[in-house]
Formats: sequence, C-alpha cells, structure tokens
Amino acid sequence: MKRTLILNTPKLIGKKVKIMGKVDSIRSHGKIVFFDLEDMSEVVQVVAQKELFPEINEQSFLIVEGIVKRRPEGSINKKIITGEIEIEAQKIEVLSKAEVLPFDLKALSLKLPKILDFRPITLRAPKIKAIFKIEETAIEGFRKTLKKMGFFEFQAPTIVPSSTEGGAEVFSIDYYGKKAFLAQSPQLYKQILVPVFERVFTVCKAFRAEPSFTTRHLSEYTSLDIEMGPIESWEELMDVCENVVRGMLKEIEINCQKEINLLGTKMPEIPNKIPKIKIFEAKKEILKKENVIEDLSPEEEKDLANFVKEKFKSDFVFVTHFPTQVRPFYAFEDPKNPGFTLSFDLLFKGMEIATGGQRISDYKTLLKNIKKRKLNPSNFKFYLQAFKYGMPPEGGFAIGAERFVKQFLDLENVREASLFPRDPKRIDHNLK
Amino acid sequence: MKRTLILNTPKLIGKKVKIMGKVDSIRSHGKIVFFDLEDMSEVVQVVAQKELFPEINEQSFLIVEGIVKRRPEGSINKKIITGEIEIEAQKIEVLSKAEVLPFDLKALSLKLPKILDFRPITLRAPKIKAIFKIEETAIEGFRKTLKKMGFFEFQAPTIVPSSTEGGAEVFSIDYYGKKAFLAQSPQLYKQILVPVFERVFTVCKAFRAEPSFTTRHLSEYTSLDIEMGPIESWEELMDVCENVVRGMLKEIEINCQKEINLLGTKMPEIPNKIPKIKIFEAKKEILKKENVIEDLSPEEEKDLANFVKEKFKSDFVFVTHFPTQVRPFYAFEDPKNPGFTLSFDLLFKGMEIATGGQRISDYKTLLKNIKKRKLNPSNFKFYLQAFKYGMPPEGGFAIGAERFVKQFLDLENVREASLFPRDPKRIDHNLK
Repeated sequence: MKRTLILNTPKLIGKKVKIMGKVDSIRSHGKIVFFDLEDMSEVVQVVAQKELFPEINEQSFLIVEGIVKRRPEGSINKKIITGEIEIEAQKIEVLSKAEVLPFDLKALSLKLPKILDFRPITLRAPKIKAIFKIEETAIEGFRKTLKKMGFFEFQAPTIVPSSTEGGAEVFSIDYYGKKAFLAQSPQLYKQILVPVFERVFTVCKAFRAEPSFTTRHLSEYTSLDIEMGPIESWEELMDVCENVVRGMLKEIEINCQKEINLLGTKMPEIPNKIPKIKIFEAKKEILKKENVIEDLSPEEEKDLANFVKEKFKSDFVFVTHFPTQVRPFYAFEDPKNPGFTLSFDLLFKGMEIATGGQRISDYKTLLKNIKKRKLNPSNFKFYLQAFKYGMPPEGGFAIGAERFVKQFLDLENVREASLFPRDPKRIDHNLK
Repeated sequence: MKRTLILNTPKLIGKKVKIMGKVDSIRSHGKIVFFDLEDMSEVVQVVAQKELFPEINEQSFLIVEGIVKRRPEGSINKKIITGEIEIEAQKIEVLSKAEVLPFDLKALSLKLPKILDFRPITLRAPKIKAIFKIEETAIEGFRKTLKKMGFFEFQAPTIVPSSTEGGAEVFSIDYYGKKAFLAQSPQLYKQILVPVFERVFTVCKAFRAEPSFTTRHLSEYTSLDIEMGPIESWEELMDVCENVVRGMLKEIEINCQKEINLLGTKMPEIPNKIPKIKIFEAKKEILKKENVIEDLSPEEEKDLANFVKEKFKSDFVFVTHFPTQVRPFYAFEDPKNPGFTLSFDLLFKGMEIATGGQRISDYKTLLKNIKKRKLNPSNFKFYLQAFKYGMPPEGGFAIGAERFVKQFLDLENVREASLFPRDPKRIDHNLK
C-alpha cells in the first residue's frame, strides 16, 4: 500500500490510508489510545484499540494503516487542518522505538545551554522547529528577490590565504603544514566577480574568532552577501537592500503563517521607504552625543531605533556615512564628507542586521589605502588583479541570516536562530 | 537618463538609450571605432566617431548614450540576439580604465595553472564564465527538484568538534586555543535533522585534506547533500537521486542553451531508468576481476561506464552494494548479502559524482559499529541522541557539484569547475 501524506488525509474520509510518522501526545482512555502522528506535511490524531497499540514512547516512528473518519461533533478542532478527522487504526507497525525523553518537549522550560546540549531532540519541539522554517524561507526570499533582478548566485570559498580584513578575529587552519584561514566574509571574492557577472550574491558561511560572549555574535554564521556594479549612485545599494528585505518578509508572510501564529509573531512595521539617518546627525541630534567619529554602540542602536519607531513608524532604519576608521580598507570615502564613507548599516528593531556601502574601485586608490592601513599589499595581489583590469564603480552589502531571524522573532539570543551554534565555549557540546 | 539593459535594445530601434558595460573587441576603421559592450544581459556592437572614443583598453567600463540603429544588410549576424542592430554612440563616459591585459582573453591558450593564477581576469572569458552559469543552474535544479518533493533546506555547520568519519584527511582549526575541524561532510547533521523535518538537503562546503594531487579532487568542494526518512526501501534513495539528476539536467537544458552552444556540449544520454549493477557482479562479469571486496578504481569506473554506455545507451550507472569496509561506520549492511552494504555510487561518464545509501538507524547497532571501527563513542554523544530518541529507517546521498559539472562539460580537471579552487598547492595563488 502506498503512503499518504497526512496533509492529504482530510480529503479521504471513509477511505483506507497508510501514514508514516513520529508519535506525539499519547493519551490512554480505558481500552482506547489516542495519539498524534506527525509527518513532514502535517499532524493527525490517531485512535487505536489498546491491544493494537505497541509499547512505545513519544518520538517513536510508526506506520499506521487505518480508515479516515470524521470526528464526533464535540471534538472537532477547526484551528488545525486535520481537526475534523481522525485515523482509526487497523494495523500499526513500529519503525523505531524512542527511549523516554529526558524532559518534556512541549513544556520547553529548559534554559538555552540545556536546549543546545540536547539540540538533536529539542529541534523537534514545534516552536523551535518553526524558527528554522522561517530562516529557510527568509533565505529563499533573499534568493528569489535577487534572481528576479538578474543576480548571479555563486559559491564563495571558505578557506582563504590571509586574514584579509585585518584584525585578529580570524580562525587559522593547518593547511598541509602551512597556515590558512577561515573567511571572515566573501568580500574580496564577490568584488572579483563584479566585472564577470555585474550582480552577484552568495549564501555562505562567515567566521569570526571573536572571544566575546554576547547574545548577538556567533563564531560561524550564515552571510547573505551581495555585490553589484556598475552603479551610478551608492544609494542604489540601499534600494536593493530594502527590496531584498521586503522580499524576505513577503516570502515569510506568504509561506509561514502557521509558524507565525505558533510563535505569536507580528510582522514588523516597514514604511513606504525605510528612513535614512547620517551617523553624525544621529549622534548629535537624536542621541545628543558629541563623539561622532565612533561606531554606534548597541545601546545607541536601540535608542535610535526607538526614535525611528516613534517618528516614522518603522522597525527599520538605515544609518549612513560611517567614519572611515570604523570601516574596512575598501570603503569608499564620501567626497562631500571627508573622513566619512559612503556606507550604511541597516538596523532592524535596534540591531544591525546588514552592513554595506560603495567600495573603492580605482586600483591606485585601493593600493594606497591598503598601505595606509598597514596591510601587506602582497596579500592582495590576487584580488587587485580585478581592479587593475577594469572594475566599475560598485558596492554591496551583507545580511546576517541568524540576526535577521532573531530580530524578526524577537528572540533573546542569536544562538536560538542557529541550528548548531558555534561560540567560544561550544561546538555542539560544551568545550572542556 | 535611465539605463537600458542591452538585452532590451533590439526592441528600441530608432530610440535613444543609455547602456553601461565592459568593452570588448575594439576595432578601428579610419575615423570610426567599432567595439562590443557587454553587460549582465547581453553584448551589443557600438559604433563611435574616433574623436568620441576615449583612450582605453578592453575590459574598461563605459556608459554609452546613443541611438539604436538597424545594421546595414551585409553585417547582420543572425546568430546573436543583438545581431540585427548596433548602437550609434553620441556620448561616452569612462567608468573605469583597464590596463592592457597580460594575455589574449579570447584565445585562452593558457595552461590551467596560469588560468588559475589569473582567475580574476580569466573568469571574464566567455567560455570560462559559461562553466559557472551551468554550475549555478545545476545547483538551482537540485534545489528546485527537492523543494517540489517537500525537502527542507538547511545550513550545515562547517566547524565540527571531531574528525567524525575517521581517517586523517581532515583539516584542523585553532579554535580559541582548542582544536576543531572542518567538516568532511554534513553527514551527522543531516541525519540529526531527519526526525525533525523528515526530508532535508543542504548546499554546503565539504573539506578533504587529501594530499593527493589528481584531476578529480578538491580540498574544498560544494556538496549537494540530501537525507530522508522514513523510507520503506533503500531503493527510494536511488529514485530520488535519479530524479534530482534529471532535474539538474533539465534546468540546464532549459536555461543554458547559450552556454551549451558556446561550449559545444551535448546533453548526456539518460535512459528511462538508470541501470543498476551490484559491485561484485560488475567486478566479476564485466571487469573480469576476482577481487570483489575493494572499491572501484578510477580505471574500473571508466571500463564499467563504457560497458553501460554501449549496452544501455546510458551515461549514468548506479553501482550498488559496496563492501562494508570501504563504507563509513553508519552504512547499513545488507541482510541478504552480509559483508556488503545497501549503498550506491552514481557514475556519470565513468566518474563517481554521487555516493549514498541507507544508514544504520538503530541506536544500539550504531553504537556497536562505532566501537567496532575503533572510533571514540564519546565523540558521537551529541549525534547519538538523535538515534536514542527515535530515528526512522533513513538514508541519503551527496552529489559533488564540481564533479557533476566537470563530467557534464567533459572538462579535463575538476579545478576548472571551481571558481576559486583549493588544492594542496594552491589557495588563489601558488603556496610557497
């Protein structure tokens, strides 16, 4: 007999079906056992005679053959797709037996470290699983929106020959007895590809050996990276960034209603145009700070977000014109505001989720800047070829996938938005 | 004035347009200069008065404003989309100047090491660029086919806590003063996710520290990984694998006609059902070898492929039932053929491009096998949770993206199918 997906059972009242899935919520009532069976498509209630029901725990897998029946009037549940039916079991086969769970998966009163220690099990909790359905959908929205705009998707390299962006926050690898590194971002490679494909993006891993232990940093994260040229104005980059974020939100809204309801999430406010604020104006006028040549602190990001939320009814704001010294060597200086770059961060509910800007596309200026930053030009020989032989005015940005999801769902910790988070103290289990 | 994509210019005869792109093939004829301008969508011929044309080399970027004109009858080229028109330049603005290229991009008579040394430039050669359009499309075909079948896409971790599959071919990382590793495959994680989502896939990087220097190995490659359960028969895995490969080929056929023509590629032969051959039968009856307990050698793969091509008119063949000792600890032994596993390789034109099989889903059997292989069970504690608390019969496979493209295009070396190949002697440039 062929398997029927549970999603399709409500259309088959009176018919015999074979369903397969995971057992949940076993309830005994005298001679009858009720349980939920969950497969990739849906959950359905199964009713079985006690003698038919095997000795199993929740999370075991079964094959159930039975008749699709309309539920008695009083027990109809209109909130779920299969709420008007149940399966009357005729035959049950055990596919795998689970041991008794070490905690109640539905209560989920565990603290985050415990949730992560038991990730292979806790991921099965509907409210945790839902986070990753939303993440998958957000990434698909990113991809779809860019493909519609003619962007080329590439696979960025992970192993890189040098710590390109400077700084110590880079993991080193033993590479056949030599030293190599994990990419802090696909930056140099996406720039190299601009003269090849004009518009490129990648969904890749980026790595930061930050020893800090915050709720917003991961040692390994999913970077949604784009780069494009020729551009006529750096504002085009923010337009694309805004489009992409709208595309991600729309994709979630269309495909994740179940998850949104389950998690009690409200769609964020996003006005016709995301407001833009220059960092030095924000510092002075909104935050009343005199120091305009530093990055925004997490607290300042929150204060600014509150201001924007109130004034513009927006959960998003572009902060622009970051000072050159807080941006990498390839950032393009604003001719109108020397000392500041044509760059931006996108804040979502008070946290930076994207960062980008125009890049230096002129070979000589770039080389000069590399030297000025005391970086070794010979480390950039490969990259610089792209500029020597024709690079149009260009720029791009990157969105942190886990941060986007954290902010979308108001999660407390970015680790909750990573299937298998890596941090200074954890790779799957706690590091001793 | 707004930019027009070159693809749209043939519909605008007589109209003024602004186009932007990269200059190619500059030809001077007395007072007139002809050149090609290429953007992300197409290439078009531009005609300019000599005094209008700036002093630039090929690969420079320009903005051209001009009138779309029908070409004189004799110079119409029906082979290309813009072959009936040319742009009569009225104004030319230089966006970036390229230095003189160190070699002729069109001739491409360079040897592979040189091509890779100059990757940022050589990627711009149409025949090289086309390889990656095909790779992008193949991966999109993989994704599309699986999404249609209800598969969940996840982001697999790169940093892992131990060399899970055994063997020395693993890169180690300095992880905050401790030792961690680069994932040889997402195997353990995709299995963990089966009880969560049933059907999962990932497009991820996998790393092999193989010191060997062959035309089929990369130190970092793109792995197209799937895993699914519950399954009722391991043959379902080959069915999905076959569907996926057909989906990849179809996506290429639909979207890459230009690239296929440019590269002179013929679509491979694939019969209604890809033939299947047990390894021990292949060894004995086709290869006339007595040794049936070893893996296929590259030469045997080729001999087998020739046999299959002739007998079944197929460029693909599944080789099944590999001996337990050439498969990892999690491979499921065939109850009917002890010593052999329910596993398969998919050969494409005589090279393995995919490998998969059913896995051991029973907790105790798996634990026993880990010990039998002299692996440390404490390294698998996290992974084993998934089996202790309910794992259905399941399996999966992985396709090497670069190998698929190499075989599809009959490339000599798998490095040609990687944008930025990493091998024991190269990360972008040659390692000293």
